[in-house]
Amino acid sequence: MTAPLTAGNARVKEARKLHRRPERSGRRCFLADGPKAVEGALAEPGRVREVFATPAAAVEYAALLGDTPVTLVDERAMGGLSDSVSPAGLVAVCDFLDVALPEALDGRLVALCADVRDPGNAGTVIRTADAAGAAGVVLAGDAVDLYNPKTIRASVGSAFHLPIAVERDPAAAVRAAQAAGLTVLAADGGGEVDLFAADDLLARPTAWLFGNEAWGLPDELVALADHRVSIPILGRAESLNLATAAAVCLYASARAMMAG
Amino acid sequence: MTAPLTAGNARVKEARKLHRRPERSGRRCFLADGPKAVEGALAEPGRVREVFATPAAAVEYAALLGDTPVTLVDERAMGGLSDSVSPAGLVAVCDFLDVALPEALDGRLVALCADVRDPGNAGTVIRTADAAGAAGVVLAGDAVDLYNPKTIRASVGSAFHLPIAVERDPAAAVRAAQAAGLTVLAADGGGEVDLFAADDLLARPTAWLFGNEAWGLPDELVALADHRVSIPILGRAESLNLATAAAVCLYASARAMMAG
Repeated sequence: MTAPLTAGNARVKEARKLHRRPERSGRRCFLADGPKAVEGALAEPGRVREVFATPAAAVEYAALLGDTPVTLVDERAMGGLSDSVSPAGLVAVCDFLDVALPEALDGRLVALCADVRDPGNAGTVIRTADAAGAAGVVLAGDAVDLYNPKTIRASVGSAFHLPIAVERDPAAAVRAAQAAGLTVLAADGGGEVDLFAADDLLARPTAWLFGNEAWGLPDELVALADHRVSIPILGRAESLNLATAAAVCLYASARAMMAG
Repeated sequence: MTAPLTAGNARVKEARKLHRRPERSGRRCFLADGPKAVEGALAEPGRVREVFATPAAAVEYAALLGDTPVTLVDERAMGGLSDSVSPAGLVAVCDFLDVALPEALDGRLVALCADVRDPGNAGTVIRTADAAGAAGVVLAGDAVDLYNPKTIRASVGSAFHLPIAVERDPAAAVRAAQAAGLTVLAADGGGEVDLFAADDLLARPTAWLFGNEAWGLPDELVALADHRVSIPILGRAESLNLATAAAVCLYASARAMMAG
């Protein structure tokens, strides 16, 4: 057995460069950090190019790793590969996973995020969509990078569970969803449809359209949606945050579809 | 008009010390950072001890501030008072706002968080509870400080909207909720009640019991609850995160109560 690679090793240095978006885009690969993400990545044949682990993590996660070849690295090298404050000791270099738009729209429930900027929010929406049984997620517009380590980590493996498309033009994503037979529901505080009184609507094949965490959805995008749906605000809060609003909407759809 | 105070000014330095929990506890006051929080604080007479603003923010938020006396500080002093990466220029020193347990349990819907550790999660649950029309929130057990600037900021003003109690012993909080006539529903992935098929139960006066973001609820606390309710996980995600799970549960209650 060879000694664990150090931070100065050329392969470790090449992998560490994947913290930068241009490097990820150029090489079309990214880092999946931590056991949940690595487990998700390994579930799909051919997704993982290389797994780095500390000796301790290789032992701790032996069951998860199975017969996957592992490159052992020391703690300091792992600290450079992980962007977590307390690295779990396991990082995989993975091929990009985003799919073409139609593939992410092929189902009865889809989440379409326009201009989501915070990686934690994007990852949480992906996780929530997965939990609610959505068939896919679209990150549209001027969105955070799907492959930002924080996005992948916040998805807790769900980025590997369902098809995710990236589309620069949010209007094109809305039209594609409609062309795929989905009713596009804009989650909009000023919406004319009350989420609590919309089960017939919610039971239809649906693409939920969610806006930016700070400024919501632009008017021209709201206008493209088939309906504008508001979550009732019953107290004195002005609004919900993006991830909690998405959870309430996606679960309202899941429930209506199961009942319908 | 005097010049704005600098970072070296004694009052600015005293206020800045409130970034530390022991200092907050000792003086029973905290910093509300940004326009939403300051607006919430000012809505309650006597809550605010002092408002610090940059000259630019004093102008920008003149309508919000009304006739409230403002202490002008320069940008650098504001940078020390705010823990935000991009300070809005407005910070208020506020009296502690937590109430005795019975006051936070006086209503038909309450959120009871056990051992919530992340300030962003705690603040988001408070905001979500407010939006869902909850009558109060309890931060129980070994919880993050309610007065952590990140908790207050994530609540986007809601920490000032509804009564919040802090209780070291989560079991005591559960028993107090039951004594107040609330049915305690533990949000628990292994729960025997399906959230989608529990509207009769959800229509009762309810205290939702949520656990820690990483390890959930301890068995002994789950055992104290009246029912254990699980959110259906329809995809391949293992779970939801704390704030999204709380949103789905609290809104399920709000809807059932409105229909009931």
